[in-house]
Amino acid sequence: MQQKVKVKSDIEIAQQAEMKLIVHIAKKLNLTEDDLELYGKYKAKITSSKLASLKKYKSGKIILVTAINPTPAGEGKSTVTVGLGDALQALNKKVAIAMREPSLGPTMGIKGGAAGGGFAQVLPMEDINLHFTGDLHAITTANNALAAFIDNHIHQGNELQIDQRRIVWKRAVDLNDRALRKVIIGLGGPLEGVPREDGFDITVASEIMAVLCLASDIEDLKTRLARMVVAYNKDKKPVTVGDMKMEGALTLLLKDAIKPNLVQTIEHTPAIIHGGPFANIAHGCNSVIATTTAAKLADYVVTEAGFGADLGAEKFLDIKARNSEINPEAVVIVATLRALKMHGGVAKADLGKEDAEAIKKGFSNLQKHVENIQQFGLPFVVAVNRFYTDTENEINTLISLCEQLQIPVALTEVWEKGGAGGIELAKKVLSIIEENQNNFDHLYPLEAGIEEKITTIAQKVYGAMGVEFSTKATKQIADFTANGWSNLPICMAKTQYSLSDDPALLGRPENFTIMVRELKPSIGAGFIVALTGDVMTMPGLPKAPAALNMDVDEEGKAIGLF
Amino acid sequence: MQQKVKVKSDIEIAQQAEMKLIVHIAKKLNLTEDDLELYGKYKAKITSSKLASLKKYKSGKIILVTAINPTPAGEGKSTVTVGLGDALQALNKKVAIAMREPSLGPTMGIKGGAAGGGFAQVLPMEDINLHFTGDLHAITTANNALAAFIDNHIHQGNELQIDQRRIVWKRAVDLNDRALRKVIIGLGGPLEGVPREDGFDITVASEIMAVLCLASDIEDLKTRLARMVVAYNKDKKPVTVGDMKMEGALTLLLKDAIKPNLVQTIEHTPAIIHGGPFANIAHGCNSVIATTTAAKLADYVVTEAGFGADLGAEKFLDIKARNSEINPEAVVIVATLRALKMHGGVAKADLGKEDAEAIKKGFSNLQKHVENIQQFGLPFVVAVNRFYTDTENEINTLISLCEQLQIPVALTEVWEKGGAGGIELAKKVLSIIEENQNNFDHLYPLEAGIEEKITTIAQKVYGAMGVEFSTKATKQIADFTANGWSNLPICMAKTQYSLSDDPALLGRPENFTIMVRELKPSIGAGFIVALTGDVMTMPGLPKAPAALNMDVDEEGKAIGLF
Repeated sequence: MQQKVKVKSDIEIAQQAEMKLIVHIAKKLNLTEDDLELYGKYKAKITSSKLASLKKYKSGKIILVTAINPTPAGEGKSTVTVGLGDALQALNKKVAIAMREPSLGPTMGIKGGAAGGGFAQVLPMEDINLHFTGDLHAITTANNALAAFIDNHIHQGNELQIDQRRIVWKRAVDLNDRALRKVIIGLGGPLEGVPREDGFDITVASEIMAVLCLASDIEDLKTRLARMVVAYNKDKKPVTVGDMKMEGALTLLLKDAIKPNLVQTIEHTPAIIHGGPFANIAHGCNSVIATTTAAKLADYVVTEAGFGADLGAEKFLDIKARNSEINPEAVVIVATLRALKMHGGVAKADLGKEDAEAIKKGFSNLQKHVENIQQFGLPFVVAVNRFYTDTENEINTLISLCEQLQIPVALTEVWEKGGAGGIELAKKVLSIIEENQNNFDHLYPLEAGIEEKITTIAQKVYGAMGVEFSTKATKQIADFTANGWSNLPICMAKTQYSLSDDPALLGRPENFTIMVRELKPSIGAGFIVALTGDVMTMPGLPKAPAALNMDVDEEGKAIGLF
Repeated sequence: MQQKVKVKSDIEIAQQAEMKLIVHIAKKLNLTEDDLELYGKYKAKITSSKLASLKKYKSGKIILVTAINPTPAGEGKSTVTVGLGDALQALNKKVAIAMREPSLGPTMGIKGGAAGGGFAQVLPMEDINLHFTGDLHAITTANNALAAFIDNHIHQGNELQIDQRRIVWKRAVDLNDRALRKVIIGLGGPLEGVPREDGFDITVASEIMAVLCLASDIEDLKTRLARMVVAYNKDKKPVTVGDMKMEGALTLLLKDAIKPNLVQTIEHTPAIIHGGPFANIAHGCNSVIATTTAAKLADYVVTEAGFGADLGAEKFLDIKARNSEINPEAVVIVATLRALKMHGGVAKADLGKEDAEAIKKGFSNLQKHVENIQQFGLPFVVAVNRFYTDTENEINTLISLCEQLQIPVALTEVWEKGGAGGIELAKKVLSIIEENQNNFDHLYPLEAGIEEKITTIAQKVYGAMGVEFSTKATKQIADFTANGWSNLPICMAKTQYSLSDDPALLGRPENFTIMVRELKPSIGAGFIVALTGDVMTMPGLPKAPAALNMDVDEEGKAIGLF
């Protein structure tokens, strides 16, 4: 984002890039026009029958892109993901990128685009950042149809004896709208339903998004949807979508959303963009279907996980890589000098000043993420994503810190140069895959108890001394275990800004404990969310939202979108 | 709907029909592949550049399909619209159908499909009845983005001095959800916004839907959006989208939704399906862009308006046909014998019994609609939409009633036979167009006052003795006139079941007055809504909603959708 000041804006670069017809991009993955459902000339979904036929294909090698803890300086994880894909293509590899689809909430609010940046972008960026192929709208609709059916069930006699004080299914909009966080619905008298407290989450925080992203096919989607807990009855027993008999209708609403979307980068590398769950309340990765489809169609897949490696990569490796064919061969850890300086104590306003000492101090954050990836038994490369204000002295400082610890490192300049700026990184990634030092294993076995699994993550990944469970959380662990939910993986909901649960503790915090306030069962997705601190599931808008600069020209072309 | 018992269900007929590629259908309208943005193989939007180029084309002849007041027996207006299009094509006319897009709320709730029925359907019916090309989702999103921005504006300091008790912009979902009719939002303390009363409408009741349907192009769309009134400030002056500076972002969100959608009937007649505003709180017709595009591309356009002729046709002729190139050449008034029997006092359970006397009695309803179309100076044909239980005696009774009054009438069997069942109707329509007895004029001049315009509609179209205005409505008329809004056409929000404002008064009620309870300014759409009685802008779900029967097979094909 900060790089916009330098030359053109992302949307200018994107709109000046010449796209190839998506049927031509598809050919690179041996997909014919019959394998595609076109959405205009430059977007397509892959058909159900093609997806079914892929099951017998062999998988290519998966490269996971993750990062240090994010700072306001920006790291450019998506940009490096795209650039690495382009670089691998430039090296004549058969490659596909697998990424998340953006949410409209941040788009209209404050964030830059979620489709990469500079010359490492996915196209058509306006479409991807707006309605794209409608997947998020389908999820919003399914989420809210279920909510309407729950209230209608109660209104019509409440056969399932749902306790209206214990409805856990919230409504959703794919927007930032703080006024909908806490609401009272059903007002107006007996004809308007039963009054109760409710709230709206942003669509990407809906369990349906997590379910869609973890389902292996449409049958599995339906099974998972049926399992989702929507409320508790008057005996405090869970009421599921299956009890409501809504899984068929919800699957029908999602029948197209579950098909992955094919687009291209500026350099015409195929990119599959599909699903985008939150990385706090959910696991923060693109869909299993997107990643496996990319892996079946290409020799190399570059994919990313949300936030830093403590959240996104841990969840990728302990949740997404658990019940699917997804076993990564290598990890890329993205860092920028500016972000390391912030971890080293520099304020954002002072980032322009050279400060090698701050880099040495902030390096501790990167080092912990490196150790974490090593704990998973995975080979890795650190990608230093270059920004134009970085000095040679600063770059050399970081590279020698890495070399002292024998950390493989590569400088990338993909924002400015596209794939050409990622060749060194691509070569190092190919070489660590070649060396085949992969001993990937999950951090914990599923059979460990809920408390033990959470403690393992906190101690091994965050570096915490231990975990404190609130009275509520302790009671929930007992209840969940009684419900038969203790064998699920854990989805930690923690601040992304720190390895600890305190967003102010940058670098590599020590001597802290993690406070688990509450648990949330996501039985359809198949994980237990552990909430530490306050986790935002509905963002707000800033004082001057990005949307106020947006417009169209007389031909309907987007203006002012990033 | 009732006809399903006879043979196959609508979805079975639809799924067994063989579609042609939409590029082939497009050729019938001289559209090339470059003029299309494909959404799969069987749906396409027409590109902005093609739409712009059409402005210089000559328009074909527009045929408006309307009906008697609807009853639970069903009339089949959409089915006749499709069947008439197919019949005109069978007579080698260059024809296009222009229809509304369905809302998901009724689809998941109770209603049959909105894409015709039997062998007179538009395809692919599953897609059309579910997410289609995402137009309604884009409208929902734009509606709710605007709502979020209003609450954010107040939260961030309220520069425009919006009175939070006088926000008239509601939120929307494209679902039936009674629990959202009356809500309180912004609860939870100062960080969660400002608490206030709010409510959700179904998306098709959003003013944005009406705006999209009346806009002539994307520039006009933006102008209309900017004009929409969202609230009143502390001096009770209107606050518009233009004041909020949101018209650019909203237009961007709607840049694809404004392009009309091309599909086909079972008999491969081109159909443009676009926009679907409510016929009470809005004008109930497909978009101006759809109708004009169809007229520019074909020699004959068959289009419909919502509910009976007292609401849909009156609004088509006084609102939609006012500020555009839309001048109908002929009108078709659809009636069924079963519906006329209900207007004649027969209960639904007794419709199976032959009852020529009830038909004679119920004929009064049809006769009033005939007189109304004559008032507009338009030639017409009554279409008797045959149902398999209709007896020869009943049919002859109706036909001789029409012939006695020299009312042109044709029996249609399009549900069972497709276009072949509509040849007689098509020939009569062509012949009245040929005779050129068209003296079309609007019912009232725009310069007449608000009160006078409402009274004219009530007396001339409904047959009321007069209109009673509530104290609130009287004050609003003064306020609206002071705001400069008195020159807009009127959009009546009245029960569709009766010519009066009492749904229980069937047939042709006499000696009644219309009570106008409240007015609503739709300044973006460009009309003043006059609310009589209670008008539902958010439907509820029934005890056993249609969605409970919906499912997909293992290939993702829809099951149980109508």
